[in-house]
Amino acid sequence: MQTLHVDLGERSYPIFIGERLLDSDELLPRYIRGKQVAIVTNETVSPLYLERLTKSLAGFTVTSVVLPDGEEHKNWKTLQLIFDSLLSARHDRKTTVIALGGGVIGDMAGFAAASYQRGVDFIQIPTTLLSQVDSSVGGKTGINHPLGKNMIGAFYQPNAVLIDTATLATLPPRELSAGLAEVIKYGLICDEPFLGWLEDNIGDLRGLNQAALTEAIRRSCEAKARVVGADERESGIRATLNLGHTFGHAIETHQGYGVWLHGEAVSAGTVMALEMSRQLGWITASERDRGVRLLSRAGLPVVPPANMCAADFLRHMAVDKKVLDGQLRLVLLKRLGEATVTSDFPQELLEATLNANYDALARESEPKRFP
Amino acid sequence: MQTLHVDLGERSYPIFIGERLLDSDELLPRYIRGKQVAIVTNETVSPLYLERLTKSLAGFTVTSVVLPDGEEHKNWKTLQLIFDSLLSARHDRKTTVIALGGGVIGDMAGFAAASYQRGVDFIQIPTTLLSQVDSSVGGKTGINHPLGKNMIGAFYQPNAVLIDTATLATLPPRELSAGLAEVIKYGLICDEPFLGWLEDNIGDLRGLNQAALTEAIRRSCEAKARVVGADERESGIRATLNLGHTFGHAIETHQGYGVWLHGEAVSAGTVMALEMSRQLGWITASERDRGVRLLSRAGLPVVPPANMCAADFLRHMAVDKKVLDGQLRLVLLKRLGEATVTSDFPQELLEATLNANYDALARESEPKRFP
Repeated sequence: MQTLHVDLGERSYPIFIGERLLDSDELLPRYIRGKQVAIVTNETVSPLYLERLTKSLAGFTVTSVVLPDGEEHKNWKTLQLIFDSLLSARHDRKTTVIALGGGVIGDMAGFAAASYQRGVDFIQIPTTLLSQVDSSVGGKTGINHPLGKNMIGAFYQPNAVLIDTATLATLPPRELSAGLAEVIKYGLICDEPFLGWLEDNIGDLRGLNQAALTEAIRRSCEAKARVVGADERESGIRATLNLGHTFGHAIETHQGYGVWLHGEAVSAGTVMALEMSRQLGWITASERDRGVRLLSRAGLPVVPPANMCAADFLRHMAVDKKVLDGQLRLVLLKRLGEATVTSDFPQELLEATLNANYDALARESEPKRFP
Repeated sequence: MQTLHVDLGERSYPIFIGERLLDSDELLPRYIRGKQVAIVTNETVSPLYLERLTKSLAGFTVTSVVLPDGEEHKNWKTLQLIFDSLLSARHDRKTTVIALGGGVIGDMAGFAAASYQRGVDFIQIPTTLLSQVDSSVGGKTGINHPLGKNMIGAFYQPNAVLIDTATLATLPPRELSAGLAEVIKYGLICDEPFLGWLEDNIGDLRGLNQAALTEAIRRSCEAKARVVGADERESGIRATLNLGHTFGHAIETHQGYGVWLHGEAVSAGTVMALEMSRQLGWITASERDRGVRLLSRAGLPVVPPANMCAADFLRHMAVDKKVLDGQLRLVLLKRLGEATVTSDFPQELLEATLNANYDALARESEPKRFP
């Protein structure tokens, strides 16, 4: 087991990473203050892991809340089911909410914990690669609104995060790839050596090699913890974690939630950010291609959806949270391993990026084969 | 104008108290960071003050959200109307939400500000005595759930609170009295000299004497700011602010929200807390009667509703937020001017309190008249 500390003053917390941590009956209880526990999970995850988790919580009064699975349920109506369960079972202010599942479960359970009786204890047990390396670190919680993703929520830190790498064995390959989009992102924005490591190990990661997964998760969480620790409320550097996300959110919104996985949209969005960084002259075409090739080898889409034109992107990006005082801010790369947030770019260059031929770009970035 | 500072480290904020502060066009803008402002108010308050407030915000983009009036609308459905308006008008993360109205508006607008895009700026302009002396100070925000009052919310501090004492001229006398219940509470729990001042000035307060109101509001806010500053998240001393509230919430729940005003329920609940403190031997019968008499002179009920028996109280109090690990905690008086939170009392004594003859007690506490 590896332990990592996210340093946020009095809201600091540990992240534990290792195989089969779910079965430990002495790790979790250390982070539970009261006698009541509410496990929030979904219909897909509960048959796999709920019983094992409940078994490790002998001695506590456990309430299970099993929600429908999917981003389309990340709304107030589903959140209300958590409150209904907590109140019906008379959970008091010392209760602990445990999120068992992917990013949607983590976001909803976290917002429920932040809001129930104005805030109760919260523990994350992320079971997808995406939530393990991204949404379980940093305290962002929330739900969607018909007019925008993650528009309602709270910054709320967990008491602890428990990452059981063995849970990835039950994850569909498409979702594993989606998680790798965020892993690759850390290399691109702040850790160039990690990018090289990923190029060497991408096959092992897709093949579920546990040691490789543990290493990739640890380095990703470290990168995120470092950035979040420096800027908890996203006033500056934290925004670089959104590389590819502004373009990606436009893709998700346009396709309808759930058609493209979040990581898939981020992957295509990252390719667009790489291309724009190249057009600005900050990175070379071959550096851009290095990023595109790695995303492609991770099993991710590197071309935006064919049904979207530049105007579609511009319309959706206008309501993005990265808009401040009407100005669109984008995360771009100064070089491989260093990102910046800027609204200082010519509009024509953004439009050229939106109109670029990504099919051709994807072909060019493919590794040259010799007969 | 009087200015008071609530000291909460980096979340400190000022409270301004004075006549006709609503018309000042230079006070408010100092606390608005961006260009967008959303005024959240209700159907009763908007015809009275919305136009004046909007006029003082020339130069800002103002969105008005007019909600239905009443505690029965303090729920998710109404909260959603705020989010709908903010998103439709494309408010970004630098927007400022202003609550213009009573406690229900403050609680809902505050929770909306806490949750919109995970937290935006917030200013309170309370227009009822109750919200001026209580709910605008301390950062408690939230909504009700069918299974309990204020069960969903956040601790969220405003940037500033603006109290215009002239707005009390449009408040129904019954609501003025309800506000006085909380004013009297501060005397009982932490300021015995203030209790004497109130006995001398209760007539002027009910007669809307502006100087008396300003003094009562200032001393109440000072008392609350002192307590909240010492214990922001209600782990200890802050709970003493709930004198009469555990009994009072039971009354509100049993009668249905809105039948008894919050302050009225708190008044009857305070009488029960006074009686229980007397039964414990902490205060004398004549000290208890001093409290009961002052509440009665303020125009408040001092007898619990006739349709509630001891079992009704016990049932409703079991889901109160003051229950921890199954133990009911009550705010009681060690002496006039000093409250304590305790679960260390015999169950029989609680039942004797619930079964006491409050009609007789109310008669006995009346000032003796000589022919």
